[in-house]
Amino acid sequence: MSGSSIKFLGTRPSPFANRVEIALNIKSVDYEFITEDIFNKSELLLQSNPVHKKIPVLIHGDNPICESLVIVQYIDEITWTNGPSILPPDPHDRAIARFWADYVDNKWFPLILEVGEAVEKDAKKAVLQKIIEGLCLLEEAFVKCSKGKDFFGGDSIGYIDIALGCFLGWIRAMEMMLGVNLIYEAKTPGLAGWAERFLSEKAVKNVIMEPEKLVAVYCRPKKQAASAN
Amino acid sequence: MSGSSIKFLGTRPSPFANRVEIALNIKSVDYEFITEDIFNKSELLLQSNPVHKKIPVLIHGDNPICESLVIVQYIDEITWTNGPSILPPDPHDRAIARFWADYVDNKWFPLILEVGEAVEKDAKKAVLQKIIEGLCLLEEAFVKCSKGKDFFGGDSIGYIDIALGCFLGWIRAMEMMLGVNLIYEAKTPGLAGWAERFLSEKAVKNVIMEPEKLVAVYCRPKKQAASAN
Repeated sequence: MSGSSIKFLGTRPSPFANRVEIALNIKSVDYEFITEDIFNKSELLLQSNPVHKKIPVLIHGDNPICESLVIVQYIDEITWTNGPSILPPDPHDRAIARFWADYVDNKWFPLILEVGEAVEKDAKKAVLQKIIEGLCLLEEAFVKCSKGKDFFGGDSIGYIDIALGCFLGWIRAMEMMLGVNLIYEAKTPGLAGWAERFLSEKAVKNVIMEPEKLVAVYCRPKKQAASAN
Repeated sequence: MSGSSIKFLGTRPSPFANRVEIALNIKSVDYEFITEDIFNKSELLLQSNPVHKKIPVLIHGDNPICESLVIVQYIDEITWTNGPSILPPDPHDRAIARFWADYVDNKWFPLILEVGEAVEKDAKKAVLQKIIEGLCLLEEAFVKCSKGKDFFGGDSIGYIDIALGCFLGWIRAMEMMLGVNLIYEAKTPGLAGWAERFLSEKAVKNVIMEPEKLVAVYCRPKKQAASAN
């Protein structure tokens, strides 16, 4: 543990904030969770992330760090933490982990946003199909990366686990709201088992909100929704 | 130098491929450059990057690595290379470098694509203004990161230098085609000097094409353009 303080600006329903909290838990880091109201952002947030003005932000001593996967790598690289490595030690395995985390953020996650925006039933169905196709790719990645173990990272939660796993709450909420199967599709048996194990992990289980609560957050008037804790 | 071979699938006009080549040059790695025709992709490319089917791909022995910044980090992390580190050693400095590289790829570069797509003069002008605003943010980042030295990375080219610098050829080509000033704006004197130094570096100067040649590539029929070398 370092002498300098760790402040973490986030909201509970945000999957990106969840990533940071899971990484802090894995590394047994003490931190102060400061809940942000994203419709009335604090001066601390605006000063700490002047480029994007978004959560999550980690403030270590006087140094703010922004962008969830950048923060997760930072937490993994600081040397005074306890806990298993988040990125694997081998450079090629690290590259594979970064590749899939990038895929999740830049190809797969935008489809989740698209579902919410699609108005017509056929359009929504087409996007859901693309989400499932993405999950099938991630199933293949899981089989290759886990090598028969519990997580993408092997015996313990690693970088891809955190990058994808943070969305599990919202995936389950979407499944409830839309009456569909996504992660629990018959096509992705590896991911279905992985999702259950991930959500049961000590570092995760009090971080990711229950799907019922996320549905309630989603259905609240927009001004209240994002600041919910 | 490692015993196993390095193959690099790219095209000369691609800024993303340029990143990989610059990183290989910085680390004095021998490699075989295999030029891809992006309108008639090779089996090797399709097999090596089945998810995105895009260049650049680095193939180290039998292991393909995809996505330019993932590859640059891989090249930096393999231990048998010679040459200065690309990412800085301090975890906070590394986080800052990753933050700005992410900004370049996900916020700033999409504006470059938007300029090409904007048809009306006013729309084009509005996007160019946003590009300049982005460069002003990057000017501030340059002042902070370089601490009065030549590059974002200090005395030698680092991660942000490679992430942003790979676009300099196309920025200069855009300046010629549109009759505007971007990187050489009076508002960004630090970046203007940095750009000249970056393009003069040994690891860079035979990699990034001259703006006149990029203009010619841009103006060729589309099927020929991307495969130009």
